[in-house]
Amino acid sequence: MTEFMKEGERLDDLEIKGYQIIQHPQRFCFGMDAVLLSDFAKAKPTDKIADLGTGNGIIPILLCAKDKGAQITGLEIQKESADMARRSVRYNDLEKQIQIVIGDMKDAANLLGASSFDVVTTNPPYMIAQHGLRNVQEAKTIARHEVACNLADILTQSAKLLKVKGHFYMVHRPFRLAEIMNEMVKAKLEPKRMRLVYPYIDKEPTMVLIEGIKGAKSRITVEKPLIVYEKNGEYTEEIYKIYGKQKGK
Amino acid sequence: MTEFMKEGERLDDLEIKGYQIIQHPQRFCFGMDAVLLSDFAKAKPTDKIADLGTGNGIIPILLCAKDKGAQITGLEIQKESADMARRSVRYNDLEKQIQIVIGDMKDAANLLGASSFDVVTTNPPYMIAQHGLRNVQEAKTIARHEVACNLADILTQSAKLLKVKGHFYMVHRPFRLAEIMNEMVKAKLEPKRMRLVYPYIDKEPTMVLIEGIKGAKSRITVEKPLIVYEKNGEYTEEIYKIYGKQKGK
Repeated sequence: MTEFMKEGERLDDLEIKGYQIIQHPQRFCFGMDAVLLSDFAKAKPTDKIADLGTGNGIIPILLCAKDKGAQITGLEIQKESADMARRSVRYNDLEKQIQIVIGDMKDAANLLGASSFDVVTTNPPYMIAQHGLRNVQEAKTIARHEVACNLADILTQSAKLLKVKGHFYMVHRPFRLAEIMNEMVKAKLEPKRMRLVYPYIDKEPTMVLIEGIKGAKSRITVEKPLIVYEKNGEYTEEIYKIYGKQKGK
Repeated sequence: MTEFMKEGERLDDLEIKGYQIIQHPQRFCFGMDAVLLSDFAKAKPTDKIADLGTGNGIIPILLCAKDKGAQITGLEIQKESADMARRSVRYNDLEKQIQIVIGDMKDAANLLGASSFDVVTTNPPYMIAQHGLRNVQEAKTIARHEVACNLADILTQSAKLLKVKGHFYMVHRPFRLAEIMNEMVKAKLEPKRMRLVYPYIDKEPTMVLIEGIKGAKSRITVEKPLIVYEKNGEYTEEIYKIYGKQKGK
């Protein structure tokens, strides 16, 4: 195992098919966002998938664990994150299914091939560049703030990567919903399905899961609310199910 | 009372301040949409309000009942509906606060005055004109389908009617959310607040309440879910509260 790890890193158990992921506490570590996105995304076992801004490779690994997609390419601009992702892929024996490419999302269609993917997934930076920025070089900043690319870049490149009627899946913050819908329509990734994630039944949502279809007509299905916690602070049954666990176990 | 009513009409008690509304079962009768919109809309007691497509005047009357707005103008294209609205206004002694204008929404800014309203409310036709249309002359069809005007018309006219930073409130169907957001941004009525109405906690939402502010920056607050029924089919406490009632009474 030590052959895969570098100093300061830790190995976290994903508790699906025995998969593990290498993370570094000073870099972006995966959260519920990635888990919910990999559950929300639909893909056939034959699909070719691109994951934009893949970080430590959590989404490709979770998609593999759920038998979604035949070939998954993760694109990451930060070399150290991409390196961790590659080591996690090897550690889990997923080299045949997942490849990690180092490169800029703004150049994704050139790097990975235009009109060649069935599915694009992304857990992009949520915050606008100006929001409380301190150090634009810092790894977490690049993962969280739109310093290396913005929403319009990601959507434009996703549309280019996808075949006609290809599916786009994103997790984002509800406060940017109007902009998301507007930019998706502009990019011809028509919003077709949306689900809001509410921490509690009586609180504002903290995440939005959205599906777009390239070149589709305008009509969206807003799904039932996804509620994370019961009133007593325990996960709801649906969250347990998404995490592949049973309540009370 | 008979002086106010015509054949086939009925008088329904709004159970707020003793207000009543004249309705005709063969025309569009108000539903929960109007009640929720009048609750969702915010207006100062000094505000000038326009209600586009006012039908039998239910929204202006409910806004008066909630002390929202000083002057409310309801615009309605169908003469028979406008006539019922006028009689309901008189019956409730609200002629000083509410006026009903007969006219086309597509001409609203010319008819009522550009940049002269603090608030615009609307419960517009939800369905696209082509959806299962039978008789374009029928009163209910005009209220429900976009035969007399479409969403872009309503938003363009609402933006014209409003002062800068004026507030726009609409109730609509979630399946058109992407189009709504997109057209609102185009019309410069930036979506700033949204609430989804779910019939039950585990069902898809059936209504969306949305607030736009003319000329505002992009950032939306998605509010906690509004759930209509408990699992046993009884109204939730919040719905009872909006209807001005207490649970179990």
